[in-house]
Amino acid sequence: MAGEGSGKPLGEFERIERFFAPLAGPGGLGLLDDAAIVDCRAGQHLVVTADAIVAGVHYLPDDPPDLVARKLLRVNLSDLAAMGARPLHYLLTTALPSALGEEWVGEFTRGLAEDQRRFGIDLLGGDSVATSGPAVLSLTAIGQVSAGMEVKRSGARAGDLVWVSGTIGDAFLGLAVLRGAYPQLAPEHRARLIERFRLPNPRLDLGGRLAGIAHAMIDISDGLIADLGHICKTSCVAAVVELASLPLSPAARVIVDGEPGVRTALAAGGDDYELLFTASAGLAKAIDDLSSAIDIPITRIGKIESGEGVRLVDAAGQTVPIDEPGYRHF
Amino acid sequence: MAGEGSGKPLGEFERIERFFAPLAGPGGLGLLDDAAIVDCRAGQHLVVTADAIVAGVHYLPDDPPDLVARKLLRVNLSDLAAMGARPLHYLLTTALPSALGEEWVGEFTRGLAEDQRRFGIDLLGGDSVATSGPAVLSLTAIGQVSAGMEVKRSGARAGDLVWVSGTIGDAFLGLAVLRGAYPQLAPEHRARLIERFRLPNPRLDLGGRLAGIAHAMIDISDGLIADLGHICKTSCVAAVVELASLPLSPAARVIVDGEPGVRTALAAGGDDYELLFTASAGLAKAIDDLSSAIDIPITRIGKIESGEGVRLVDAAGQTVPIDEPGYRHF
Repeated sequence: MAGEGSGKPLGEFERIERFFAPLAGPGGLGLLDDAAIVDCRAGQHLVVTADAIVAGVHYLPDDPPDLVARKLLRVNLSDLAAMGARPLHYLLTTALPSALGEEWVGEFTRGLAEDQRRFGIDLLGGDSVATSGPAVLSLTAIGQVSAGMEVKRSGARAGDLVWVSGTIGDAFLGLAVLRGAYPQLAPEHRARLIERFRLPNPRLDLGGRLAGIAHAMIDISDGLIADLGHICKTSCVAAVVELASLPLSPAARVIVDGEPGVRTALAAGGDDYELLFTASAGLAKAIDDLSSAIDIPITRIGKIESGEGVRLVDAAGQTVPIDEPGYRHF
Repeated sequence: MAGEGSGKPLGEFERIERFFAPLAGPGGLGLLDDAAIVDCRAGQHLVVTADAIVAGVHYLPDDPPDLVARKLLRVNLSDLAAMGARPLHYLLTTALPSALGEEWVGEFTRGLAEDQRRFGIDLLGGDSVATSGPAVLSLTAIGQVSAGMEVKRSGARAGDLVWVSGTIGDAFLGLAVLRGAYPQLAPEHRARLIERFRLPNPRLDLGGRLAGIAHAMIDISDGLIADLGHICKTSCVAAVVELASLPLSPAARVIVDGEPGVRTALAAGGDDYELLFTASAGLAKAIDDLSSAIDIPITRIGKIESGEGVRLVDAAGQTVPIDEPGYRHF
């Protein structure tokens, strides 16, 4: 990290030494070297993923910096979870406007430190540069999985059932609440929805346990319908999802009870970071048992068929039109 | 790469599919999965590094996009070279303003494709997002080295000699030429200096061959003096550099002949991406032979002593004051 690239004022070295070096693990060489070292173990695959977020696009500029850091880390860990991998390390590059001073960076790295402890990972390296525009934060996460046990998007087969962990649509509603929607909702429900939006919970334990069970898996970032569409496209199959079966949180259920049409939007809204996977129908009992064992709801929401595309159906089996699938900007 | 993170307009998926997916290797799963897979081989270490560059800070917004891409890739490969590692893969996140359309992205990815072929590497994944500010490009490079053979910055010992590959200061002078300096310089010299600034040449072959020879190594990005300072700091030693011994290109020699004071600035200027290393004095003959064998100049420029800091001396052994060490912004 230190000393990489040109155009770096001396202050950046001090910033790295003060705020980022304490986050480094042994492979990161104290962020004092050109690159970092990752041990390779025979019979293992490393799994790598990268995401970038931009202030004003993926988060609000006045969002708490520690939560911005933890969300950035967690969305990457969620990608590792969706492959069945265990996280090990990460690299981080930050392009920050000069208006974000030491206080912001201190809070940002405090959030990273907190989640490093929680997930047992460390910082390997990266870069710290200045920009005249909004902050751009880019993170590369590195995980590990037994060779051949990684779960891809492309393994879904006609006849599979479709399952999803946790509850769907909370982050979508959390963003709506932040924007002023549902003012009549109880404060504890509002707080819970906002928390789901600000701080996703990567399903790492579940992802690891689904290696060997799931045929195809993805984490829901773009929205349940869009992400199931990614599985269908790469697997060359179609999917049918029963709208009524979508698992909703108590807060989401209150909103949907008052406005039933919102249920479709929850299927299209993103940022859930739950795991969506397909598996043989014969494994339904094993999946129920797994759900009980780790105390995470896993709900069967549909099935895989031959064909292409994702179809949403109501209780009577009638096709429900889908709003614009997935994501939205601030 | 595809489908990661929220806030992504549909156009980004198409952009990834059209421009970035063709760059993916087998481990990248066509950029269609949550993450990519890297094979681990017993007895090997993976080496990882990340750098970010910002338009208007690290490159000029109207620089040719293919050269921007190749420089970004090469500065990261240079970090791998400095560890003695062989490059394998990279991940890339791009935050681009909407003003940069398909033509720019097409040229940018054409440059990546060209250097992928040259260096035998492929794209594993990444992200593509929008920003209202200047472009921010972040690249993570992954390489491989035999376990225990990696060369760190921290291994320099008192009594070592200090060596540098190639010639020093050309990129610094190339930037000066781009800004209008040295209008009297011959066109071929001007072109050569600009090329050194725009397209560094990572010393991958040399770096690999120096594993087992060099005690400490770094690539010169912040400037020879500053980067030798990094070696000294992490190794807890001092260094003395003989100003007259700095290897200069024919173009740089013309400039220094006319203006001898520039020589000190070349020792402080950055972006050379040459390898700077220390080794036992007893290996001088082996290093000369290596230089001949691979036809890359390797010049002895000084020595390591006990103490701290870097001292520049003239032919009479007198200390030469050092200008602000390292790098500069546009």
